[in-house]
Amino acid sequence: MCEACSGAVLKKRFARLLALTKTWWCIILIVICVLVMAVLLYFLFFQSSSSDGYVIKPGPLYPPTEGYVWPQPQYENKQLDYFTFNPAQFNVTVTNHTCDILKNALERYYNIWKKMHSTAKENNKWAKRKKRPKGDTYQGDATQLSVVLEGECEEYPHFDMDESYDLKVNKKSSLESASIWGILRGLESFTQLLYFGNYYTEIHINATKISDYPDYKHRGLLIDTGRHYLSLDNILKTIDALSMNKMNVLHWHIVDDQSFPYQSTRFPDLSDKGAFHPSLVYTPADVAQVIGYAAARGVRVVPEIDVPSHTRSWGIAYPQVLAKCYKKNTEIGLGPLNPISSTTYKLLRELFEEVQGVFPDSYFHIGGDEVSLGCWESNPNIKKYMNKHHMTITQLHSKFMLKALNILRNDTRAIVWQEVFDNGVPLSNDTLIQVWNYNWVREMVKILSAGHRVVFSSSWYLDYKNFHWNDYFKDDPRLMVYQKDPTLDLDKIVGGEVCLWGETADDTDVIMKVWPRTSAVAERLWTGLDYMNPPKEFVTTMDRRRIEEHVCRMRRRGIAAQPPNGPGFCIGAA
Amino acid sequence: MCEACSGAVLKKRFARLLALTKTWWCIILIVICVLVMAVLLYFLFFQSSSSDGYVIKPGPLYPPTEGYVWPQPQYENKQLDYFTFNPAQFNVTVTNHTCDILKNALERYYNIWKKMHSTAKENNKWAKRKKRPKGDTYQGDATQLSVVLEGECEEYPHFDMDESYDLKVNKKSSLESASIWGILRGLESFTQLLYFGNYYTEIHINATKISDYPDYKHRGLLIDTGRHYLSLDNILKTIDALSMNKMNVLHWHIVDDQSFPYQSTRFPDLSDKGAFHPSLVYTPADVAQVIGYAAARGVRVVPEIDVPSHTRSWGIAYPQVLAKCYKKNTEIGLGPLNPISSTTYKLLRELFEEVQGVFPDSYFHIGGDEVSLGCWESNPNIKKYMNKHHMTITQLHSKFMLKALNILRNDTRAIVWQEVFDNGVPLSNDTLIQVWNYNWVREMVKILSAGHRVVFSSSWYLDYKNFHWNDYFKDDPRLMVYQKDPTLDLDKIVGGEVCLWGETADDTDVIMKVWPRTSAVAERLWTGLDYMNPPKEFVTTMDRRRIEEHVCRMRRRGIAAQPPNGPGFCIGAA
Repeated sequence: MCEACSGAVLKKRFARLLALTKTWWCIILIVICVLVMAVLLYFLFFQSSSSDGYVIKPGPLYPPTEGYVWPQPQYENKQLDYFTFNPAQFNVTVTNHTCDILKNALERYYNIWKKMHSTAKENNKWAKRKKRPKGDTYQGDATQLSVVLEGECEEYPHFDMDESYDLKVNKKSSLESASIWGILRGLESFTQLLYFGNYYTEIHINATKISDYPDYKHRGLLIDTGRHYLSLDNILKTIDALSMNKMNVLHWHIVDDQSFPYQSTRFPDLSDKGAFHPSLVYTPADVAQVIGYAAARGVRVVPEIDVPSHTRSWGIAYPQVLAKCYKKNTEIGLGPLNPISSTTYKLLRELFEEVQGVFPDSYFHIGGDEVSLGCWESNPNIKKYMNKHHMTITQLHSKFMLKALNILRNDTRAIVWQEVFDNGVPLSNDTLIQVWNYNWVREMVKILSAGHRVVFSSSWYLDYKNFHWNDYFKDDPRLMVYQKDPTLDLDKIVGGEVCLWGETADDTDVIMKVWPRTSAVAERLWTGLDYMNPPKEFVTTMDRRRIEEHVCRMRRRGIAAQPPNGPGFCIGAA
Repeated sequence: MCEACSGAVLKKRFARLLALTKTWWCIILIVICVLVMAVLLYFLFFQSSSSDGYVIKPGPLYPPTEGYVWPQPQYENKQLDYFTFNPAQFNVTVTNHTCDILKNALERYYNIWKKMHSTAKENNKWAKRKKRPKGDTYQGDATQLSVVLEGECEEYPHFDMDESYDLKVNKKSSLESASIWGILRGLESFTQLLYFGNYYTEIHINATKISDYPDYKHRGLLIDTGRHYLSLDNILKTIDALSMNKMNVLHWHIVDDQSFPYQSTRFPDLSDKGAFHPSLVYTPADVAQVIGYAAARGVRVVPEIDVPSHTRSWGIAYPQVLAKCYKKNTEIGLGPLNPISSTTYKLLRELFEEVQGVFPDSYFHIGGDEVSLGCWESNPNIKKYMNKHHMTITQLHSKFMLKALNILRNDTRAIVWQEVFDNGVPLSNDTLIQVWNYNWVREMVKILSAGHRVVFSSSWYLDYKNFHWNDYFKDDPRLMVYQKDPTLDLDKIVGGEVCLWGETADDTDVIMKVWPRTSAVAERLWTGLDYMNPPKEFVTTMDRRRIEEHVCRMRRRGIAAQPPNGPGFCIGAA
């Protein structure tokens, strides 16, 4: 900077600047002045026109919609005709295929309907049902839903699963899909079409046609149980909420520097010594429960064992697998995994083998982010090794990641954080690269240009600033890349993940920190945007009203989502 | 701004600026350059020296303290000698006076001790109790606490109550106070001295002497049930948490523009029509329960009925008491209370009379903030009235507030928001003026100079920005005023209140939004600061460790306080 300051270029520019006459200076200042005034006037006008100054509306700031599905279906035709809905007099039939997942789902949704119905009945206490006015579009009771599953059930959801479905709601309704996953999504939509009517004393549903499918295949949430332990109960609740929002991936960043709560059968000492406390672990039974609960709701569980950094807790039981860090030739503590020790790779191979056996998903996240290369560089043995093999520190990181990738099973596909790509590790085309850092558009363009696939997260860090749901509603990764370079293959942006890192989140606040902000991303990823004709307004009044309804719906179903917009209330939310 | 730009002064200055030689310009730029580099270097150095770069400590970021009382007592002498504590073998005796409040408190604390003890017993499952090492300062079981209440019990806590106490912990301990309120504070401190020892398998307590009293008399929290309804359960939990933090005021901003959940016996229509829903109200029994629950914990409940603005919900049942607002001579809706209608004052008189009868506290908050004077000015009848009486709009506001103050009972003391003082309403010296807006130091100086008393809130708005507990820990109102004008009577700053406005807070997040951030203010107000010798560092490592313990303590007692600092964990928190 200072070199440039005495350089010829800058000197010339300043000379030019100083050569401006006083008149020009004044003109520039006047222009700035006018611009500032314009901005001020805009805000003044905007404020007074939007609220009429001093007239305040009593009641909720944004009244909730009635029976609007979140995320917005791809195609939806909603009629004014409506039916009343009483689960006790409603008949669900299943034709073609069926299976446990479907049977359990029907039972689950039936219970949700029953609970809604008893809330409606209770509300008769406060306001008696009114006679329907003349000209009302009431069409009697809804009587039936016919569920048509056209293909055989799969046991586990997977990356390429089919989630599309067709739903026709009428007196007699039908839900069709080629896949159990589409049926699950359709049952959720059917349930979201139900709303309280007639002063909350009845359940209504409008005649509706929906044809629906997701725009992005991978729609996930990262939870981090290494910085704070999360109870099984909250993880299951989170899965419930994911499926309510048609998301399909729980990215379980299960261990980190601070603690190792994953109870390994091969290396029980890792959690016996590395967990915050021996009671704060996930046993094999816990993990199996999470996987099964998620599968039943069409949610994949993708485990992450982050290497070579973020592994400090491993060293309580196995200090020998961590590199020693030095400062002026004095050992100062342990750093990332030791990349030049065969013990490291032996433990890694066995641990990875176990984890791949435990989690049925074909994707496995091996991290690779934020490597403390400084520690490796400070270590005399590692330095010697690098000199001997004529390696830079980045090449050492690459070599480590390559070895870690190579010990994965052949049928396992890897997910890595962006640094692994940035450092030039040769990656197969089915590897997913998760973009999380700044300059994300440039990064995605680079990754796509190299023919790789992207999972996008940068805009969706929940612990970054005090962002609200509408901030998370704005960024669509395909739109951003399209605006930069319309020639790239946007299908290679396979999805995105919201990240709730665990430094400041624990059981007390995990649910309300995630919801409804993650609902905003859920809609971006499911419904997508027409990126060639992006909307002028990303958050409309209707969106605000829809999310009000969706938040109450989540609360009625046990998810303590935060109020999204301002003053308001929910009925039937315990 | 633009007038000045073409003015003589600016012209002259620019002429002088432009007259600088190129050499001078370069020198200025170099200086800036060096300064920026210095800042960058500072951060670089700071970062590497504070964390040693790449060496990461596993486990909690700040390990909790063991048996440290929050808020910090005024005088405390803690010994290394410690005792084990088993509630089943611990004897509490009461000498001198006793009463229901004391009996109930002892039962309450006994249950807390019992729960701690069973958590400790359960932990034997994870880690067996270890033999004490030689040289350990263990002194056997604590056997007894003798509670000496020197004065008769009062029924309700009040502004001038005595909260001081003396606590001596040893094998046989004693707690002494002149007042039941001091005894309550002392029982809380005794309970906070208990901590888990020997791998969480025992309860320990150290020999300690505490002499304690609050620096500020009024230590409160505002909750707002007008923007979102809060369940009775969460209000009671909030009171529990207040008493755990030795706070003594729940400021209940009970109604607002959006809803009127207070069920009035004289005007039942106010809540029948003005609540969000007829089920979302506080019945007389609910209110009585809140007041009784709070009194039993030494917490006053101060109601606020905010007038003349923030009253839009009144107008659903009683539109005639609100002023009509106009835009270009067209009626556009209802605004604040109508200041020129006798109906308004009639309703106000009767409602205030009822509320003063329901709430035993001698203080009553009548608001007076953010009045939409624009609406009054737009109303032709009000304008005519003002013209007739040669009044400005501010004088009309003053007149209204004065009338509202005059209809209060003689033994009621008022609290008002700062606007009432700012607008020149003559206030009695026992009125409390609550400072909430910007430029708070100047405002407090003005109020104190006029001989009035202050309750401070400006720094403690919980919905303002994404502030953490340590941000709330920094501002002491007496210190701020002392630094501006050391001659003022600082005792007239009688206390402060944390404010949780309800726009974005409801049952889902009220507890975690309030705690532990309010604990920071609780300590500022209880312990105070030596404002003549303020500390160099307002948030020490010890403070961070102490609040870690305090948060776990709150969680063990059912208050879902957020993690305060970073990675960590709690034992025994359901």
